[in-house]
Amino acid sequence: MDERLRKQMEFVLEVDKLKKIGRQTYLSDASRKENDAEHSWHLALMAILLAEHSNRDIDVLKVITMVLIHDVVEIDAGDTYAYDETGKMSQRAREEAAADRIFNILPKDQAEYMRNIWEEFEACESPEAQFARTLDNAQPVMLNHATDGRAWREHEVKLSQVMNRNKNTHKGSEDIWEYIHGLFIENVSKGNIIKE
Amino acid sequence: MDERLRKQMEFVLEVDKLKKIGRQTYLSDASRKENDAEHSWHLALMAILLAEHSNRDIDVLKVITMVLIHDVVEIDAGDTYAYDETGKMSQRAREEAAADRIFNILPKDQAEYMRNIWEEFEACESPEAQFARTLDNAQPVMLNHATDGRAWREHEVKLSQVMNRNKNTHKGSEDIWEYIHGLFIENVSKGNIIKE
Repeated sequence: MDERLRKQMEFVLEVDKLKKIGRQTYLSDASRKENDAEHSWHLALMAILLAEHSNRDIDVLKVITMVLIHDVVEIDAGDTYAYDETGKMSQRAREEAAADRIFNILPKDQAEYMRNIWEEFEACESPEAQFARTLDNAQPVMLNHATDGRAWREHEVKLSQVMNRNKNTHKGSEDIWEYIHGLFIENVSKGNIIKE
Repeated sequence: MDERLRKQMEFVLEVDKLKKIGRQTYLSDASRKENDAEHSWHLALMAILLAEHSNRDIDVLKVITMVLIHDVVEIDAGDTYAYDETGKMSQRAREEAAADRIFNILPKDQAEYMRNIWEEFEACESPEAQFARTLDNAQPVMLNHATDGRAWREHEVKLSQVMNRNKNTHKGSEDIWEYIHGLFIENVSKGNIIKE
């Protein structure tokens, strides 16, 4: 078989493991928590539907590529919860090593392209990366709100924490940030997020 | 809040249910079966990585949009297993009704766009639809092969059935069809697919 296609299919099979990487966010019916593959699918669909709300012109295909692969490093490095400050200290090194291994399964040109896309997402400076990050921040807020703040309540999350985590959410989309901020206020008033 | 964004977010929340629609295909580690959201994420990533193998020039963003939403109708209509001939008889009517309800949650222009994209996928005639269908057919074969044919064995699937189901797989990509066909032959020799 075509060696190039063989490498591509090996990568496609390897990243199947993303379906086993759990996140802290519950599905909208609170029946269980979602995984990275489901989360990434949700973000890709949001990228298409919400692109018009980006503050700046964006290449939607690039945003989609970013969100589809942004969590692939967690296959080796694991998911680090947004408010786990200890875990976040070693996160970058673990994720770099994961990127080295996983993207290099692909043919060289695609390995480099995907690695660059992932680095661009991590740097969070380009219009596409900032919009992708806005979606990545907004999606769990939408789900947490749908479950009456279950994950926030379980982790006793404070308003200062969600505001700090979302300090850059407005950079991708002021519209989406306004929506998300409205949900924070509503969930503080419900007691789902702790107001200090 | 912006009425347009409100409708978009309502749709994004509604389709969260796709994470609960089970498929017959096992994950590559055979630990459980995958769901529609995970499957759709996998296809979108394959669309990006394998686009070069399409027989014809394709708009990759359109293929991605197709595969991200191709199963959304199953939220109401349920998943119909590839070899469930009884279920397939009522499938189209159930899926049309589902499309009417679900896509119309979106603002009118996006509802029409997504409905048309879904119809185009179903018609399976455009280059994008044929390539999307090739991916939709290839992905479960790759996973079934990785699990030593577990889903095929459980359903006692015959070679004539997989060949019939894949009679159009070559139309999107001769390269990918050659790969898939090779897996069929290998799994017949292993006794995972029944040769009549």
